[in-house]
Amino acid sequence: MATVRLISDEEAAEDVRAVFDDIRATRGTDYVNNFWRALAVDPGQLASVWAEVKVVMSGQGALDPLTREMIYIAVSTANACGYCAHSHTASARAKGMTDDEYRELLAVIALAGRTNHLANALQVPVDAAFDANAALDR
Amino acid sequence: MATVRLISDEEAAEDVRAVFDDIRATRGTDYVNNFWRALAVDPGQLASVWAEVKVVMSGQGALDPLTREMIYIAVSTANACGYCAHSHTASARAKGMTDDEYRELLAVIALAGRTNHLANALQVPVDAAFDANAALDR
Amino acid sequence: MATVRLISDEEAAEDVRAVFDDIRATRGTDYVNNFWRALAVDPGQLASVWAEVKVVMSGQGALDPLTREMIYIAVSTANACGYCAHSHTASARAKGMTDDEYRELLAVIALAGRTNHLANALQVPVDAAFDANAALDR
Amino acid sequence: MATVRLISDEEAAEDVRAVFDDIRATRGTDYVNNFWRALAVDPGQLASVWAEVKVVMSGQGALDPLTREMIYIAVSTANACGYCAHSHTASARAKGMTDDEYRELLAVIALAGRTNHLANALQVPVDAAFDANAALDR
Amino acid sequence: MATVRLISDEEAAEDVRAVFDDIRATRGTDYVNNFWRALAVDPGQLASVWAEVKVVMSGQGALDPLTREMIYIAVSTANACGYCAHSHTASARAKGMTDDEYRELLAVIALAGRTNHLANALQVPVDAAFDANAALDR
Amino acid sequence: MATVRLISDEEAAEDVRAVFDDIRATRGTDYVNNFWRALAVDPGQLASVWAEVKVVMSGQGALDPLTREMIYIAVSTANACGYCAHSHTASARAKGMTDDEYRELLAVIALAGRTNHLANALQVPVDAAFDANAALDR
Repeated sequence: MATVRLISDEEAAEDVRAVFDDIRATRGTDYVNNFWRALAVDPGQLASVWAEVKVVMSGQGALDPLTREMIYIAVSTANACGYCAHSHTASARAKGMTDDEYRELLAVIALAGRTNHLANALQVPVDAAFDANAALDR
Repeated sequence: MATVRLISDEEAAEDVRAVFDDIRATRGTDYVNNFWRALAVDPGQLASVWAEVKVVMSGQGALDPLTREMIYIAVSTANACGYCAHSHTASARAKGMTDDEYRELLAVIALAGRTNHLANALQVPVDAAFDANAALDR
Repeated sequence: MATVRLISDEEAAEDVRAVFDDIRATRGTDYVNNFWRALAVDPGQLASVWAEVKVVMSGQGALDPLTREMIYIAVSTANACGYCAHSHTASARAKGMTDDEYRELLAVIALAGRTNHLANALQVPVDAAFDANAALDR
Repeated sequence: MATVRLISDEEAAEDVRAVFDDIRATRGTDYVNNFWRALAVDPGQLASVWAEVKVVMSGQGALDPLTREMIYIAVSTANACGYCAHSHTASARAKGMTDDEYRELLAVIALAGRTNHLANALQVPVDAAFDANAALDR
Repeated sequence: MATVRLISDEEAAEDVRAVFDDIRATRGTDYVNNFWRALAVDPGQLASVWAEVKVVMSGQGALDPLTREMIYIAVSTANACGYCAHSHTASARAKGMTDDEYRELLAVIALAGRTNHLANALQVPVDAAFDANAALDR
Repeated sequence: MATVRLISDEEAAEDVRAVFDDIRATRGTDYVNNFWRALAVDPGQLASVWAEVKVVMSGQGALDPLTREMIYIAVSTANACGYCAHSHTASARAKGMTDDEYRELLAVIALAGRTNHLANALQVPVDAAFDANAALDR
């Protein structure tokens, strides 16, 4: 169930089809997952998000692509985005996430969930020592 | 401002003081940040959270400690825990996070924030291909 | 699946039935959606929420009813309320939301998701210029 | 307090300064608010977010710019982004939001907060009638 | 700092002043906290929220008023509403919450934070056994 | 659907089976719900969470076990954890929650949802009167 029609290859207009094809070529698979078929409701948004995903999640950089997937899963979990937790756990596995890595990812997420709630309940005031501006002004 | 009194070294009972001392010894600094001084309202919780933090954030494992800090920041950001974003960004820097790594961390968090909202707005149905149980039952 | 029994017309006590009937009359449809059938677990809450929905979402005012539905969808998305995203997207369409309007709504929601995460990660301090009290005291 | 140094005009590199100048020119004011000065930690992200803000929040479209600001405030409120609630309430006022419009915006946000929690507590199952795909397949 | 002017007693119109006076009389204190002074931007909303607070938080019922305050703190913590965590922890103390009760409240909130994140990361499917409708239809 | 395989009794390693057996013995039922079968992906986390649940949710204390379940439901609702809302509503009922108590729980959750959003939208500044440290320093 979705709030929009999932666009099949047959229904896809040319600009949408071009993104679908690039997803396939980039990932080396014929499968285009539902997120893109739903986002096709707005071809401009579809093209823009896919372009950002390619750069941010797979581009050259200081963090390896698997680390980026785990950060993505962490955000998605806290935001209660079920779809995103599913799709990026699958992506992380496709990028080689081991069972041990997944267990540690879960452990950090669970610990942060615990301490985030404690800090928010206690309304702990931020230490002056954490202020990047103060630190740099010294 | 906090919902509880921040416990100073002078006020700390023996069990609380023992945790403060272990924080100092483990981190190699005299500074004990406010989170622990607030959590001291419950010495049992204080000891339990600190024990978990030591194992989960610094223990031997498949993920390096800096990666764990970045995952922690990601969860804290999505949960709008200002204190946690501050304290763990400071921790990540203390563990060697470079400016490039921080920029990429921010880029993944921002992208996940964008796509989490799109997936939740569109209520995209989870692809059967993502079901770990189905996959393994084949 | 729900945590309470969905109340059918046949099971509805008189006070619940009165709300169901008013929903039908107000909307000009025979269909009463699941939210109300679940909320019927508490007839007082049911009547109070429905009364507020009628005034806030359809009453005379400075904002047109479609704008209100889009604001509602925005909140529901950020709160990860799947039911609410579905039901109010349907309501917005019933009130005439065009495909272009929906695309722009999604674009604003996605942008806010992106920047909310950046501002929360960076813990940007609020500019004094934004303080309504300061501004007015000048 | 922030996790990064707020970049002043004097410290700004050329690419950052170019964005600051475009913000000033676009808004017709000399004031560049803290969000941009913090985001300048990543000149690429800064330029990309500002470009998206210009198009999404001010570009020609089906929704008027004030409506977009109100949708933005709604998302930011639910995400507990204090900075964003402040900055976009200021923007909405700058775009002409009246006190009556603000009151109605608050009323819709408050109602959605109430019903989102009820629907999530009751775990109301989504009505088949809301399925865009089913509807269109008929 | 707030997005609206906090209304002082002197500035308060008659309808706002009536609510302020009822807050004072009900609570047996001269102090009117900032939430009400901000909400006074909309006298109708102010009166409606205060009326609901009186009934829901203090009215006769199956749950004692302190239990209700602790439930309120739990929601506010998860929603990262700093103001609400502060004001309702103060209310809970005014209603007699002991240090032991506060410690247990924090322990449950922290545990729920931990397990909520685990269940959302793992996307655990809801057991058929939990379906209130199925249960009752048997 | 889940991101991990749900572990059946047959597949469970000895340490996992020991936790499953303790869940059965503690609850006096043969049924082990899906959360534990998913969490079994990490036997250490499984054992640790179950040990914490036993102490925090059922141990001797100042709050009765049903009150703790209601606090848990409150957090889970605000965090949009559907699984948790379902499983702990079932637990609360198993511990004797009456329909009246559930209605009042829902009423407090709904009110907090409403006011949390208002306070976050208005960015109400915390009253100095709520500062536990200031109060105690006097």
